[in-house]
Amino acid sequence: MTAGDRDRGVRALREAAAARLDALRALRRDLHRHAETGWTEFRTSGLVARELARHGYRVLRGHECVRPDAILGAPPAAELTRRRREAGELGADVELPGVVGILERGPGPTVALRFDMDATEVLEAEGGAHRPAVEGFASTRPGAMHACGHDGHVAIGLGVAELLARPDLPWRGRVKLVFQPAEEGGRGAHPMVEAGIVDDVDHFAALHIGHEALGLGQVALEVTHFLSSAKLDAEWQGVAAHAAGAPERGRNALLAACHAVLGLHALPRHGGGATFVNAGVLRAGTGRNVVPSVAELRFEVRGETDQICAGLEAAARQVVEGAAQMHGVEVAIRAAGRTIGARSDPGLVARLGALVAACPGELEALPSFPLGGGEDATLFMRRVQARGGQALYFLLGADARSGHHSATFDFDERALGHGVALMTGLVLDLLG
Amino acid sequence: MTAGDRDRGVRALREAAAARLDALRALRRDLHRHAETGWTEFRTSGLVARELARHGYRVLRGHECVRPDAILGAPPAAELTRRRREAGELGADVELPGVVGILERGPGPTVALRFDMDATEVLEAEGGAHRPAVEGFASTRPGAMHACGHDGHVAIGLGVAELLARPDLPWRGRVKLVFQPAEEGGRGAHPMVEAGIVDDVDHFAALHIGHEALGLGQVALEVTHFLSSAKLDAEWQGVAAHAAGAPERGRNALLAACHAVLGLHALPRHGGGATFVNAGVLRAGTGRNVVPSVAELRFEVRGETDQICAGLEAAARQVVEGAAQMHGVEVAIRAAGRTIGARSDPGLVARLGALVAACPGELEALPSFPLGGGEDATLFMRRVQARGGQALYFLLGADARSGHHSATFDFDERALGHGVALMTGLVLDLLG
Amino acid sequence: MTAGDRDRGVRALREAAAARLDALRALRRDLHRHAETGWTEFRTSGLVARELARHGYRVLRGHECVRPDAILGAPPAAELTRRRREAGELGADVELPGVVGILERGPGPTVALRFDMDATEVLEAEGGAHRPAVEGFASTRPGAMHACGHDGHVAIGLGVAELLARPDLPWRGRVKLVFQPAEEGGRGAHPMVEAGIVDDVDHFAALHIGHEALGLGQVALEVTHFLSSAKLDAEWQGVAAHAAGAPERGRNALLAACHAVLGLHALPRHGGGATFVNAGVLRAGTGRNVVPSVAELRFEVRGETDQICAGLEAAARQVVEGAAQMHGVEVAIRAAGRTIGARSDPGLVARLGALVAACPGELEALPSFPLGGGEDATLFMRRVQARGGQALYFLLGADARSGHHSATFDFDERALGHGVALMTGLVLDLLG
Amino acid sequence: MTAGDRDRGVRALREAAAARLDALRALRRDLHRHAETGWTEFRTSGLVARELARHGYRVLRGHECVRPDAILGAPPAAELTRRRREAGELGADVELPGVVGILERGPGPTVALRFDMDATEVLEAEGGAHRPAVEGFASTRPGAMHACGHDGHVAIGLGVAELLARPDLPWRGRVKLVFQPAEEGGRGAHPMVEAGIVDDVDHFAALHIGHEALGLGQVALEVTHFLSSAKLDAEWQGVAAHAAGAPERGRNALLAACHAVLGLHALPRHGGGATFVNAGVLRAGTGRNVVPSVAELRFEVRGETDQICAGLEAAARQVVEGAAQMHGVEVAIRAAGRTIGARSDPGLVARLGALVAACPGELEALPSFPLGGGEDATLFMRRVQARGGQALYFLLGADARSGHHSATFDFDERALGHGVALMTGLVLDLLG
Repeated sequence: MTAGDRDRGVRALREAAAARLDALRALRRDLHRHAETGWTEFRTSGLVARELARHGYRVLRGHECVRPDAILGAPPAAELTRRRREAGELGADVELPGVVGILERGPGPTVALRFDMDATEVLEAEGGAHRPAVEGFASTRPGAMHACGHDGHVAIGLGVAELLARPDLPWRGRVKLVFQPAEEGGRGAHPMVEAGIVDDVDHFAALHIGHEALGLGQVALEVTHFLSSAKLDAEWQGVAAHAAGAPERGRNALLAACHAVLGLHALPRHGGGATFVNAGVLRAGTGRNVVPSVAELRFEVRGETDQICAGLEAAARQVVEGAAQMHGVEVAIRAAGRTIGARSDPGLVARLGALVAACPGELEALPSFPLGGGEDATLFMRRVQARGGQALYFLLGADARSGHHSATFDFDERALGHGVALMTGLVLDLLG
Repeated sequence: MTAGDRDRGVRALREAAAARLDALRALRRDLHRHAETGWTEFRTSGLVARELARHGYRVLRGHECVRPDAILGAPPAAELTRRRREAGELGADVELPGVVGILERGPGPTVALRFDMDATEVLEAEGGAHRPAVEGFASTRPGAMHACGHDGHVAIGLGVAELLARPDLPWRGRVKLVFQPAEEGGRGAHPMVEAGIVDDVDHFAALHIGHEALGLGQVALEVTHFLSSAKLDAEWQGVAAHAAGAPERGRNALLAACHAVLGLHALPRHGGGATFVNAGVLRAGTGRNVVPSVAELRFEVRGETDQICAGLEAAARQVVEGAAQMHGVEVAIRAAGRTIGARSDPGLVARLGALVAACPGELEALPSFPLGGGEDATLFMRRVQARGGQALYFLLGADARSGHHSATFDFDERALGHGVALMTGLVLDLLG
Repeated sequence: MTAGDRDRGVRALREAAAARLDALRALRRDLHRHAETGWTEFRTSGLVARELARHGYRVLRGHECVRPDAILGAPPAAELTRRRREAGELGADVELPGVVGILERGPGPTVALRFDMDATEVLEAEGGAHRPAVEGFASTRPGAMHACGHDGHVAIGLGVAELLARPDLPWRGRVKLVFQPAEEGGRGAHPMVEAGIVDDVDHFAALHIGHEALGLGQVALEVTHFLSSAKLDAEWQGVAAHAAGAPERGRNALLAACHAVLGLHALPRHGGGATFVNAGVLRAGTGRNVVPSVAELRFEVRGETDQICAGLEAAARQVVEGAAQMHGVEVAIRAAGRTIGARSDPGLVARLGALVAACPGELEALPSFPLGGGEDATLFMRRVQARGGQALYFLLGADARSGHHSATFDFDERALGHGVALMTGLVLDLLG
Repeated sequence: MTAGDRDRGVRALREAAAARLDALRALRRDLHRHAETGWTEFRTSGLVARELARHGYRVLRGHECVRPDAILGAPPAAELTRRRREAGELGADVELPGVVGILERGPGPTVALRFDMDATEVLEAEGGAHRPAVEGFASTRPGAMHACGHDGHVAIGLGVAELLARPDLPWRGRVKLVFQPAEEGGRGAHPMVEAGIVDDVDHFAALHIGHEALGLGQVALEVTHFLSSAKLDAEWQGVAAHAAGAPERGRNALLAACHAVLGLHALPRHGGGATFVNAGVLRAGTGRNVVPSVAELRFEVRGETDQICAGLEAAARQVVEGAAQMHGVEVAIRAAGRTIGARSDPGLVARLGALVAACPGELEALPSFPLGGGEDATLFMRRVQARGGQALYFLLGADARSGHHSATFDFDERALGHGVALMTGLVLDLLG
């Protein structure tokens, strides 16, 4: 493909995508209304699977693309059951969220695109200035809101699916569209990676829309400073006793937890890069006059590099276990999420840059962008790269209102068209 | 009244009570099935009020005998609403638990008897050895169980009400039967005392049935070593922030709570008597990656004397407030319950002893009994004594199975007859 | 011996002791001026050994009566060397404090009396109201003061030694006078017991003078409520690192110590009796900007019974070790002192009572006295009792001014005569 | 002055300095042998004052150039007295360390150069590989060692003083040579700045020799990333009490300190830059069985910017005070040292660069160097800049062995010649 061909192709795609903008917008708003948090994306998964099948993709669902024993941070079974029931018809036969659509056109490389599907645990704003509320597509489930733009990601993914399925588009090889659950908290990529979904992938790409610093049409070609993070749950189990009658018979799980919280926050800074620690949620004890026999803590550590994060995690586990020993209680530590660092391959960055450059006036390239946050697409990236492939992660500007995870988050839906055009263009560039 | 008169009177009462044992047992079992925890005794209060009225008592209900702004440790309004609705017909028009029945017969002293009505927050056992389960009167509300015998207290109280209303019983003066909500946690006596219910009382008596150490028919005439206690709730309010993005903007309520928990448990022992401290329940934080903005702690301090307890409470408040200051968060401390020490008056102890002595073979007196626990009847006792009256608190053996507050607590219901006889006898002795 | 004989004997002893009061007072004041704290009683031991030898006793010194590898809580070697040098001529050849004098008169039982010799770590008051200052016998060593009356104990012991050596006193058997170092902190009895000093003893007695609650001449015949205690030292060893350059390379011993201190103070109270915990002295760190690599803590736990104390000690060790684990540092725990509970034998209590009763007007018996403190004479008592002997511990009133261990402690020296008379009388009563 | 003039001048200076290298080395070694830690530079100050006077400078000493009430982190008075006595003849009449030498040559701008004089609290190595030990100039005072190269700074300063005093050197204006005590811990600059020493200065320069990353002759022209820091001392004052007799009467300073240490280490990280916290030294308590009545803590906070550091300091003070409130003890917080950030002025950086460039083969310029540490020369820099002047801080390579503050620190003394040449050259460049 020549540069001229590519430019013409991108512009054609851009027009095709723009022509579908109303449908993309409607789809995104439907998803926004039915926000589903991590591991409860039953309706979303059902909808995605239906659409992929409609366009002729081979569809892998649930256990076919998510390794159950590698799942991180799933909610209690009772909540899953309840949420599945609430998901209605679309989610009725979805046992486990997570969908992969595969389309093949003869021999050639494999390109995988990843789109995450989960909403955040945020109560959506009702105020008059919040467009989803004004225009009637605010979340119908209190405490679940697409405040991170993943509704847009799914819409883009299905837009790409539709375009790539058009028989007139010239490409050869294989496309894998990966719809991932539970990106929030770094929970869903790990079991999909462990299921081997990207083990045969030559080129991988993922995007995120709506970073506050980017205006509509701006594209951050290369993202750096992914924070490495470990999300952990600790549960201390002690022995209850009457607090005045026989306190000496108790084993106090709350005291262990309090020592652990203070010990975690006292984990040393690092001379070689940023670290963060947060003990976020603690629940302990059963009654005012009972020695607390149980305590549950949700916490996380982050480091500027994988090595810093690994050191912090090891030290954090030591803190949690030592605190248990102090008070003679048992403790179990479970991994509940994980993100790592990654770097996009320059070759893919350059290809994306060329696509952006082909749309002057509408798209604009930004150089290296330090994220300073976590993103579990990095697990796919590192796996692909470890097996000889190439990976890319980029940001797509959308004039986002408020910050991510805020109750008034929203974005300019024209970015959906940009996303479809760039992702489809990338596939055509690689497989054309 | 001569000693011979009294003895004959007591024996007559004993027979009258024994004759009513089936009815007392049925009443106790009905209450046991409909166990209601503190401040939710809607059905119980409705039933008590109906019975008192039926026997001709003047009835004070809710706000008439419970001072609302002195209520301690009430559950959230939503829970109260739900429980009132669940209470059915009897509780339908009970706005606030708490009932006092008043009967007058010409001039004379005023005698008050107090009966507490609340169940404990215990899940009743289902096993075959547990009589309430076997015989079909186990609690129908999971997590609420009469595991402290207050169902028996109410039955005794209504038995006494019926006997005293009999026209043939010779007494002059005034009787007040006080049915108190929320004894558990030391919550219900305070607002009834503050309502002035016992301000005009010359003689006051309360009992407790079923202490494990006492066999059926044994009566501990004098109880000592009431622990003084303060039950407190602390709520720290901080500021949420993204734990990695801008942790410095947060004000960490969980850290404040952890410092407070450790500081509370480090409150000094006392050279002059026993102390106890328990941080029982902690709930803090909203999300793993959010600086915790809120923390709630339920705790208590106890002392062998009122003075020791008061010192501990003052020091505990200092700990909680200092911990808030450390982390720049706000804190509110609420009293959620209170018990104090008290001593029965020797004159009343002697009268009770004489009643017991009049029933050899059936009742047996035990000397001074050290309770080593809390009981909020002491608030009534101290108020009555402070205004020149006399007070009595005694224990009535009932071959109790398991300890109080255990899931298999039960007692020998013949004790109900003993309770009715002794309480009625005491009134007749004082007003005869 | 008849009761009349005994009474006459006691009165004779009382007169003999009173006749020596000036000498006893002079001796006590000499010891007071040369106060020596635990394990540094070089001069005192030398003086005691000289006097015992002068009266014809066989003398065991240092290693002959103190088992070196059982010594608890000895100061650093450098301090011992310095103090030995300061002790002057008398202490010059005393390698290790501790003296036992043995006198035999034919076959018969063995009676041991124990006198402790150490001063407290208190800076003696200089003020005008303090008699030792006024009359010129205040301690000449800053920070060492006989503020617990052990100077009087040694004077009594030597007074007894002199009387018992008189050829005209009628007794048969064997007397062991045990002069113990380091009673403060419960350090000196253990290695003397372990040396087997009282393994052949049939009757054992020890006294303490000057309890604030007792007036001159009052004798508490039976002492109860000895607190059981364990005095422990913890030393955490971590790794130093530059606090800003590479804090992650450090292992923070101070953080471990702080967690341990809070954990120790949070050790649960006990439903079965009093407990006390104190983290008394902490030294940690080397520089402001260096991660602290070392921390040393002196602490103690006490319980109303040996069992409560043992449970506390086990839990305390767990706290200290768990805190080390939390922060990845090493820790060593050393026993630095120990006291246990004990009970006097009624037979000996009765004998003492008879002696006191023989001196009406001068001495007065008090019944059971709850000490509520620790005393390591209990280790001798329990060893003697375990081997079939009998033991006694009593208090001798002396109109003490200020509390024990206060900078203005002093007592009425006439009590020295009482002590000599009672102890000698007890020996004569047992061996006469 | 033309570039050619300057180059010739620099080379001439370089030769002049090199010619004095033996004298500079001898002087540095004399200072090294007589290492004096912060605020005890009595001998050093005396020596400096004598030399400055010998070269014709007007000399300000002690209170004339150091504002007493602004002194930070001075040792106890007793230690100062002892050290002054030990300083010998040279230090005999030095009341307070700190010297400024002033030389004027007609009208013109004022240039100030600052040299710090204090040693570190390090025990110098004795091993064979340590040149100061091998060649006999190791510190004669245990625990005081020039392990940061300030001996070299003083030698350079006096070398500059001698050259500038030469009548043949062409300059006009005024030179101030500032010999500062107590740079370690950021203690000495503040009171000199507050004394107004640099208030009339147009150009200011300071250097540091021997950074490990720099080889001999390498010059880091511009230094960035000065950490802003606050060094603070906290002293908690509680109430002692017998730990078992009446612990409730105590106010526990050690508990307050432990809460503070944990609270300090839990101070939040910052999203905008690095932070560091260290609780370095804690001393608390008086006896094992006494409630600790006193605790002293030395700690520090550092931030990547002044604003971050100020926020940390405010939060740290809150932690310390809140911990005191928790336990009902008093606390005093004293500033013991302070460093801030600063930026060299480009004009001066350029001048220095030109001087370096004039000595190819011997000197080599390095670009921007991130220090990542604290240095209180920044206080002078900011004051000069605040009053319209310019400031410069640079690093001079010296093949340093071991890191700064290590027991085997040493450097290549040829750097002394480089320092003299560059500093003198800078003055001539500015005033020539």
